[in-house]
Amino acid sequence: MAAMNPATLALRARYERVRAQTAALAAPLSEADAQVQSMPDASPTKWHLAHTTWFFETFVLERAEPGFAPHHPAFRVLFNSYYQGVGEQHPRPQRGLVTRPGLAEVLAYRRAVDDRLAGLLARDVDEEVLSLLELGLQHEQQHQELILTDLKHLLGCNPLDPVYRPAVAAPAGSASPLGWCEFDGGRVAIGHDGHGFAFDNEGPRHDILLQPYALADRLVTQGEWLAFIEAGGYTDPRWWLAAGWDWRRAQGIDAPLYWRRDGSCWSVFTLHGRIALGTDVPVVHVSYYEADAYARWRAAHDGLPCRLPTEAEWEHAAQRDEVDGIAAGHFVESGVLQPKAAPPPKGEPRQLFGDAWEWTASAYLPYPGYRPWAGAVGEYNGKFMVNQMVLRGGSCATPRDHIRASYRNFFPADARWQFSGVRLARDL
Amino acid sequence: MAAMNPATLALRARYERVRAQTAALAAPLSEADAQVQSMPDASPTKWHLAHTTWFFETFVLERAEPGFAPHHPAFRVLFNSYYQGVGEQHPRPQRGLVTRPGLAEVLAYRRAVDDRLAGLLARDVDEEVLSLLELGLQHEQQHQELILTDLKHLLGCNPLDPVYRPAVAAPAGSASPLGWCEFDGGRVAIGHDGHGFAFDNEGPRHDILLQPYALADRLVTQGEWLAFIEAGGYTDPRWWLAAGWDWRRAQGIDAPLYWRRDGSCWSVFTLHGRIALGTDVPVVHVSYYEADAYARWRAAHDGLPCRLPTEAEWEHAAQRDEVDGIAAGHFVESGVLQPKAAPPPKGEPRQLFGDAWEWTASAYLPYPGYRPWAGAVGEYNGKFMVNQMVLRGGSCATPRDHIRASYRNFFPADARWQFSGVRLARDL
Amino acid sequence: MAAMNPATLALRARYERVRAQTAALAAPLSEADAQVQSMPDASPTKWHLAHTTWFFETFVLERAEPGFAPHHPAFRVLFNSYYQGVGEQHPRPQRGLVTRPGLAEVLAYRRAVDDRLAGLLARDVDEEVLSLLELGLQHEQQHQELILTDLKHLLGCNPLDPVYRPAVAAPAGSASPLGWCEFDGGRVAIGHDGHGFAFDNEGPRHDILLQPYALADRLVTQGEWLAFIEAGGYTDPRWWLAAGWDWRRAQGIDAPLYWRRDGSCWSVFTLHGRIALGTDVPVVHVSYYEADAYARWRAAHDGLPCRLPTEAEWEHAAQRDEVDGIAAGHFVESGVLQPKAAPPPKGEPRQLFGDAWEWTASAYLPYPGYRPWAGAVGEYNGKFMVNQMVLRGGSCATPRDHIRASYRNFFPADARWQFSGVRLARDL
Amino acid sequence: MAAMNPATLALRARYERVRAQTAALAAPLSEADAQVQSMPDASPTKWHLAHTTWFFETFVLERAEPGFAPHHPAFRVLFNSYYQGVGEQHPRPQRGLVTRPGLAEVLAYRRAVDDRLAGLLARDVDEEVLSLLELGLQHEQQHQELILTDLKHLLGCNPLDPVYRPAVAAPAGSASPLGWCEFDGGRVAIGHDGHGFAFDNEGPRHDILLQPYALADRLVTQGEWLAFIEAGGYTDPRWWLAAGWDWRRAQGIDAPLYWRRDGSCWSVFTLHGRIALGTDVPVVHVSYYEADAYARWRAAHDGLPCRLPTEAEWEHAAQRDEVDGIAAGHFVESGVLQPKAAPPPKGEPRQLFGDAWEWTASAYLPYPGYRPWAGAVGEYNGKFMVNQMVLRGGSCATPRDHIRASYRNFFPADARWQFSGVRLARDL
Repeated sequence: MAAMNPATLALRARYERVRAQTAALAAPLSEADAQVQSMPDASPTKWHLAHTTWFFETFVLERAEPGFAPHHPAFRVLFNSYYQGVGEQHPRPQRGLVTRPGLAEVLAYRRAVDDRLAGLLARDVDEEVLSLLELGLQHEQQHQELILTDLKHLLGCNPLDPVYRPAVAAPAGSASPLGWCEFDGGRVAIGHDGHGFAFDNEGPRHDILLQPYALADRLVTQGEWLAFIEAGGYTDPRWWLAAGWDWRRAQGIDAPLYWRRDGSCWSVFTLHGRIALGTDVPVVHVSYYEADAYARWRAAHDGLPCRLPTEAEWEHAAQRDEVDGIAAGHFVESGVLQPKAAPPPKGEPRQLFGDAWEWTASAYLPYPGYRPWAGAVGEYNGKFMVNQMVLRGGSCATPRDHIRASYRNFFPADARWQFSGVRLARDL
Repeated sequence: MAAMNPATLALRARYERVRAQTAALAAPLSEADAQVQSMPDASPTKWHLAHTTWFFETFVLERAEPGFAPHHPAFRVLFNSYYQGVGEQHPRPQRGLVTRPGLAEVLAYRRAVDDRLAGLLARDVDEEVLSLLELGLQHEQQHQELILTDLKHLLGCNPLDPVYRPAVAAPAGSASPLGWCEFDGGRVAIGHDGHGFAFDNEGPRHDILLQPYALADRLVTQGEWLAFIEAGGYTDPRWWLAAGWDWRRAQGIDAPLYWRRDGSCWSVFTLHGRIALGTDVPVVHVSYYEADAYARWRAAHDGLPCRLPTEAEWEHAAQRDEVDGIAAGHFVESGVLQPKAAPPPKGEPRQLFGDAWEWTASAYLPYPGYRPWAGAVGEYNGKFMVNQMVLRGGSCATPRDHIRASYRNFFPADARWQFSGVRLARDL
Repeated sequence: MAAMNPATLALRARYERVRAQTAALAAPLSEADAQVQSMPDASPTKWHLAHTTWFFETFVLERAEPGFAPHHPAFRVLFNSYYQGVGEQHPRPQRGLVTRPGLAEVLAYRRAVDDRLAGLLARDVDEEVLSLLELGLQHEQQHQELILTDLKHLLGCNPLDPVYRPAVAAPAGSASPLGWCEFDGGRVAIGHDGHGFAFDNEGPRHDILLQPYALADRLVTQGEWLAFIEAGGYTDPRWWLAAGWDWRRAQGIDAPLYWRRDGSCWSVFTLHGRIALGTDVPVVHVSYYEADAYARWRAAHDGLPCRLPTEAEWEHAAQRDEVDGIAAGHFVESGVLQPKAAPPPKGEPRQLFGDAWEWTASAYLPYPGYRPWAGAVGEYNGKFMVNQMVLRGGSCATPRDHIRASYRNFFPADARWQFSGVRLARDL
Repeated sequence: MAAMNPATLALRARYERVRAQTAALAAPLSEADAQVQSMPDASPTKWHLAHTTWFFETFVLERAEPGFAPHHPAFRVLFNSYYQGVGEQHPRPQRGLVTRPGLAEVLAYRRAVDDRLAGLLARDVDEEVLSLLELGLQHEQQHQELILTDLKHLLGCNPLDPVYRPAVAAPAGSASPLGWCEFDGGRVAIGHDGHGFAFDNEGPRHDILLQPYALADRLVTQGEWLAFIEAGGYTDPRWWLAAGWDWRRAQGIDAPLYWRRDGSCWSVFTLHGRIALGTDVPVVHVSYYEADAYARWRAAHDGLPCRLPTEAEWEHAAQRDEVDGIAAGHFVESGVLQPKAAPPPKGEPRQLFGDAWEWTASAYLPYPGYRPWAGAVGEYNGKFMVNQMVLRGGSCATPRDHIRASYRNFFPADARWQFSGVRLARDL
């Protein structure tokens, strides 16, 4: 009997690990917690559990399983997110209305698909199937982060400030004064080089020109953000993009999402409950509009024309920080579902990976020569390339082995429910 | 040892019965079913379970229990519907976002308040407390109906057409041709006469003048409504109030709520699942706009100037139908959660009580000399007396001992998620 | 040659007078003033000029003129307000976008139709044509008032507070303390008796029962309203209908329309420009919600359970005030386009006619036995009988010979741009 | 007496010419045409006339005129577009409500400011004032184009299809088959080089890397667009960005703005009235979403992976087309206010300048090292750098001496009321 392909074996093990991690994230939830959709942009945990399963069923099983039959014919529509090539979709804002199938049925759906995939992977499968399986796992890891951010939004709507998971003691840290790390720029290459997995939007790798620049050596902290608030930063139109100013006024925004002031005392809602605002930890849950306004205010305040970095500046710096494609930082595995204070200065940018997604000054657009994947998975990234800004680096809710220097996340300029923070940059 | 007041004893027994009935309605539901709010006008079952309990806690225990302390301080806001006199309210459209307290905690809240009320009622209590207790029970019965209609709306949003409760076999009936019952009118009294419980909006009893009129001897059926659809009734502005026409076009309305056409075949979603459209059963889930348009079309179609009845016309007729204050009809206790075909003609209006709430041509306004109850319960009815139409008679989702000839229900002209149907009237 | 029918002759003279009055109202306007629509509920003066002409063209000329041909084929759609029976309508919110035909062309349209009607009326015409002609004149008088209120809204949006017409010196008046006039009630008749013109919604005349009641002997003044504001009336939910409270908060309402506070000083925008708030003149430009809240607050404040009158109570009182069908009061002919302080007390209700339309507690519904007119003019009133409240008595912008005791005006509960004011009533 | 600075003399002459051209554009309008605002994004011609004057008053006279006093104190707010640094602004969507000052007063305002500027320029003024004056003229030229596009939108809302200006006979042209012009790319410089006027957003000039590419040698024609419509391009989600698809469905978009189908016959509304659709002239009034969808469809249809060009690709090509900074093309001076068929092929891209603004695939973002101008004029461009796409090349409504290869126009992805068209590009 022939030995199995090690790639298949490795992927099988990884499949089990990733799927188990998703289940572990949902474990502390009641059926009600897993059911509710708190806004159109967010989805219920139950939906995430089902949709990630649908992805494997549709893009792997349907292609590779002999005699494929769907687990439930209605699930094809119910748990399709946005793949027009696969057919109709249940309307996104109504995901939370589907109370049946219940959580138990969705978990049974997960098990059934897991079993069928195990059957499929008992034999070697071809490269394309392995690729799609890997894509399914990367996809599931993205939804792991969304489970946490969507759930945080839901619990954050509850006046009782419920706790998702008790806090793990975080080593107390204190943020050093902001330092700057300089880069020469010049002709540099960005984009994924084709070794290992990457989303289609990360390529092709290509050369660009960078002018000399500096990056702040850590993320902006909550304490620094408080200074912006106290200086009237939210009410002075000078710092704001016109669209940001209109957004801020229409929505009554005067602090990051989840911040609350009681008298002179600020607190922050986290997945570990409501806690006093820590001044040394990175600020998160700010929109691009706020991040950009902060940079303008800070430039005027410090007399140093700082700004947000471009995605190319960020990636060029982060390439140095990646060792054998492994990014170090504070990720979801730590159990601390909030950013942490930066480690001691090391003469290099800290916190590039993990802690907080970093808003860049770059719009989310295709790289030169970009081609979406073939087939329905080609809808994964390309069709969102308008009216979104790029974020880089992953966050405290990102799985460690999911992030890369070339990884491009993207959200509209007003999105705040992700762990989105700020790193400053400047021209040299 | 003195014997207890029989009124207290009777109310105690009734309390147990009504509360148990609410729990029985919620029994078939998953925690997810009980959690979700499908539109701002509807509330989650869990919220109904808690709010009815809050009502007893706030208006009975807080007034009468020595050393009263709230079950949970946050519940005062969380489960207050709209009583400004009691304080702040959690925003209505966000009731479905509160996943914690969970269903088990809400059921524990119910049991705790039940226990405390049992303690209170172990001794005689004064008249005012008895009154408020009775009000609490009437209030809970109203919410029993809302549990069913709100839940129907939620399940009706689910493309899988889930079943709330399997159908109970209903005796097959067939609707006789529409007959007319004549009334002389003249000076008649309407409004509650003060014997037994009534809401404040049912009084004072007062005389009015009625011109001679006739009422249809049964409700309009689904088959008759189908003729209206097939005659193009929904697309001819001649039959519609201007506001109704605008509403119909903006919402794309072309049939009652829960009706669906597949090819030439109509089906209806019910709490017993989706079933084929029965032509002999009363139409329900129509708005006032539709009811009014139907009457105009029917008048032109039949050459008989029919219309909707006024609430006084309806009540005058229904007074004869009430025997010792007991209304006969098809109510929630039957287990059939859809209207049934009318019983055989009897020379009197049939289906006045039960089956379907009947839209009247009367706006919901105070009777001459109306005074709201004193205190926060004065907000129960009076503050809604604008932009609503009166409905009469109860439905298949109403508890039998909750309805009266003088009972005034009210909804906006575009509401469709109640069991609202149509009885025709005409001048003589 | 036979003498002409005196009715025709009288109507011909009246036609000229009414049409000239419309033109006079538009005379002070620039083409821009006459063009702009400041909100969907309002219409441009140019549109009013054209629509009233369209009415005569469509309902009189088209029926009676031999060889009728339309003045301009597009006008049939462009200047049809809401008559589905006549055909399509240009969308109401886009009336202000039609800059061509220009004002001169619309005035030419008026003259052309006037000439053709003069031709028609050079000979006797039948009763039906005379009726429709009279309806056209009554219709035009309604639009004369709308010209003023719509224009006031437009000019009121202009930060420069433009003057429509310089103020005519008004005799200074001072409001006496509020007195009460008592009425026995009993079986009384309301509705138009068929002598002279009336709209279809004023009939049939019918008996109703009234309980004994009193009416305030004058309108509520701006000074009294100021006391309501200063007592916090706008921010205390006790006084407000639930829908009114929601409306108030969503719209940020804290004073009547056109009121403005600069420091401690209140001013009011009028068609004569912005003027200091006079405490003795009647308050206008309040919604039904505000009128109702005021009455509840006043009842609590005075310890006298006052309320708004029903339309029947109002009409019964006003019948005594009409002499030979002629109502006395402060109307548009005075040139003072604001209400005036009440004349000295006379033991009868003052200001029943003119000054301000009085919100009643009655929903706008058909009288018993109501039949709309036949044909497309049947859409005039009947199709608006839902979600509106009745106002009575005319205002300072109403033509004197347009108002009657039986006249029923109607607007939604949140409308404020009419000259709508408040008279109190109470039970005896 | 010293001779005057030739720069001042030249600018004085240019000032007169530009201002006269604005007046000429407004000359065919009635006061009503000049008054109305047809949507929040558009402004009344009267407002454009006043705002451009306000710009000179605020940024030139207020700075340089001895003893400056404002023409009218209220105009500072009324005609300020968005300069927070200057103070409050009248709300943009309400510009059309200001009927007073009337058109005559605004024209008088123009003359008064012209006279005062003539006084100022009778003597030499310093460089900064000359700069701001030039900026004011460039600004006025931008508003000249907006006058035409905003007016087209207004007239296009009129069912009578009014003519702004009779058509000038256009030489009949016919579009050749689409050809491609190739470019090597490499390290190239884009951005303005500092000679002559440029907006701040055009600099700094900087090097970038371009991969080899080709540009279509003419604009996409209406005939080619019709093929897209007839192939079902508007109803196939494969071609659309997700946001574009949602926009298309929500707005019911199925053809470019101003296109209308009557049976099988297409017509187009133009400033010369409604005309039959010409297949050889460039398509205009398409959104970025449509332009992008067209390119995807065309790529699939032709089997050639074409796309929209980046702004750098466009500018690099256009630099060759500019002779001594002068762009040749079909501009507003021709009197033909619609694009024209391309001239015969010449082996170079035709129609780069004029005819239609060309949507690029580039988001509107700052160039590396960008600094906004100092002071309130710094709000001119920088604060709009989010959620907009860049357009290049000017249109048939652009003044000839206003456009440059480095000129960056920008609009949101859903804007259609500008003369926006499509040029294709592809990788080599």
